[in-house]
Amino acid sequence: MKAIEKLLSKNDELKFVCVGLDTDLKKIPKHLLSSEEPILEFNKSIIEATKQYAAAYKINFAFYEIFGAKGFELIEKTLSFIPDDVLTIADAKRGDIGNTSEMYAKSIYEHFGFDSITLHPYMGKDSVQPFLEYPEKLNFILALTSNPGSIDFEKQILNNGSYLFQKVIKSVNDWNFNKNCGIVFGATNLDELKTNLNSFNDLSVLLPGVGVQGGSFQDVIKIFSEHKRKNFLINISRGIIYLSDNKDFLSRTENEILSLNEIARGFFK
Amino acid sequence: MKAIEKLLSKNDELKFVCVGLDTDLKKIPKHLLSSEEPILEFNKSIIEATKQYAAAYKINFAFYEIFGAKGFELIEKTLSFIPDDVLTIADAKRGDIGNTSEMYAKSIYEHFGFDSITLHPYMGKDSVQPFLEYPEKLNFILALTSNPGSIDFEKQILNNGSYLFQKVIKSVNDWNFNKNCGIVFGATNLDELKTNLNSFNDLSVLLPGVGVQGGSFQDVIKIFSEHKRKNFLINISRGIIYLSDNKDFLSRTENEILSLNEIARGFFK
Repeated sequence: MKAIEKLLSKNDELKFVCVGLDTDLKKIPKHLLSSEEPILEFNKSIIEATKQYAAAYKINFAFYEIFGAKGFELIEKTLSFIPDDVLTIADAKRGDIGNTSEMYAKSIYEHFGFDSITLHPYMGKDSVQPFLEYPEKLNFILALTSNPGSIDFEKQILNNGSYLFQKVIKSVNDWNFNKNCGIVFGATNLDELKTNLNSFNDLSVLLPGVGVQGGSFQDVIKIFSEHKRKNFLINISRGIIYLSDNKDFLSRTENEILSLNEIARGFFK
Repeated sequence: MKAIEKLLSKNDELKFVCVGLDTDLKKIPKHLLSSEEPILEFNKSIIEATKQYAAAYKINFAFYEIFGAKGFELIEKTLSFIPDDVLTIADAKRGDIGNTSEMYAKSIYEHFGFDSITLHPYMGKDSVQPFLEYPEKLNFILALTSNPGSIDFEKQILNNGSYLFQKVIKSVNDWNFNKNCGIVFGATNLDELKTNLNSFNDLSVLLPGVGVQGGSFQDVIKIFSEHKRKNFLINISRGIIYLSDNKDFLSRTENEILSLNEIARGFFK
């Protein structure tokens, strides 16, 4: 099943939540720390509790790379818990010269077997090209991110009056010949989302930044529903996986995703 | 020993070559393939043959991540072959929101123990900030890269008339409060190197792109020597480690780095 088909099929069921597995030993419930593999135990439980309701899972590589080789093993094993029909995103933000990006693409798509990845646009087309050559995958390229530093370069104004991030969106549209491109657009930028949504055309959209970072799930859903536009995912990491430090953590997580899906249904009905 | 001290001390000995360990099973001499760990065997031999002459070693993460967990083990072991007084660069091009970059910084600087890293600037200051908080390390932020795609965004002209990459260089100067910043500047951009060198101030400079990509070691050395400017590294990967497919590969590599150091001495004398 192609990555885009997985996404659209979940969206058709009015599921838009991407569960972010930013798994951190300091934040998972204490009673899991005595298990042999606390991180795997946590991920497996969270996936079990959410897999009927989630539209995608995003694995934030940093939280695993901190353990070196062991961390990559944890990623490999976590992927095996995710059902085949749910999109997996390698939030690895790669991007390098062509022969190097070719290796990164092989790593993410062939070794790990992810459905999609996040990519840095800074180095230009040939730095993402090797990823574009996998028609069955989905490449989310950073456009306007959710963090304060997005003003430093992404919101620089070019000599034609547009923001740099708008130039990136235009380019990603041009790179979409295999219909396997998307963009990352921070949910903290609602005004920019409204004014730029039409320029996304048929690009998939991954929106991080809801919760701790300040974005609102409801506000984002509202904007997309008003545009009658699907093909997007709202990522929630800390705001969905760390709702309790006690044994009730799974029911809290399950309730939260159910209530988010309910909100989405309310707008898209 | 601080990262910047390692770099400057090698530069004082007129050593500027950074050996790029882009180790690829398809390219290493065939006779090594029968050893138990061909990549480690190759890296160990190359390091042994060059360690008296190299100013730094750069490990290109993509070439290891292609093997997943096993690849990270190869990186950990390769680092153990590099002498303590030679700078190690994690060419990993990381960059993410603050809490995530903090994890990447811990991974590269604390788990692996690298001296320095390459970083994407696209997401702005808070995306590199966690790396800046290691005063003893050295952070090379992408400015103008060596690949064709550098024209796509890095060379976009801003509304004040400067290139985006020039804005990045200006910002990296501002971020250098711990004197632990550098930039990546492709050796394929000689004209831009000449016109921008003065804006680098005391930033360290990592110049990739010599060899297969078309940059010339001699041309770069000439420019820096004319400016009486040290604090830089010229990376060579394919052009130094894959000079022969036969058992003479180490002597070919050793001869090459000796001859490059000879060129550097010629200009800096």
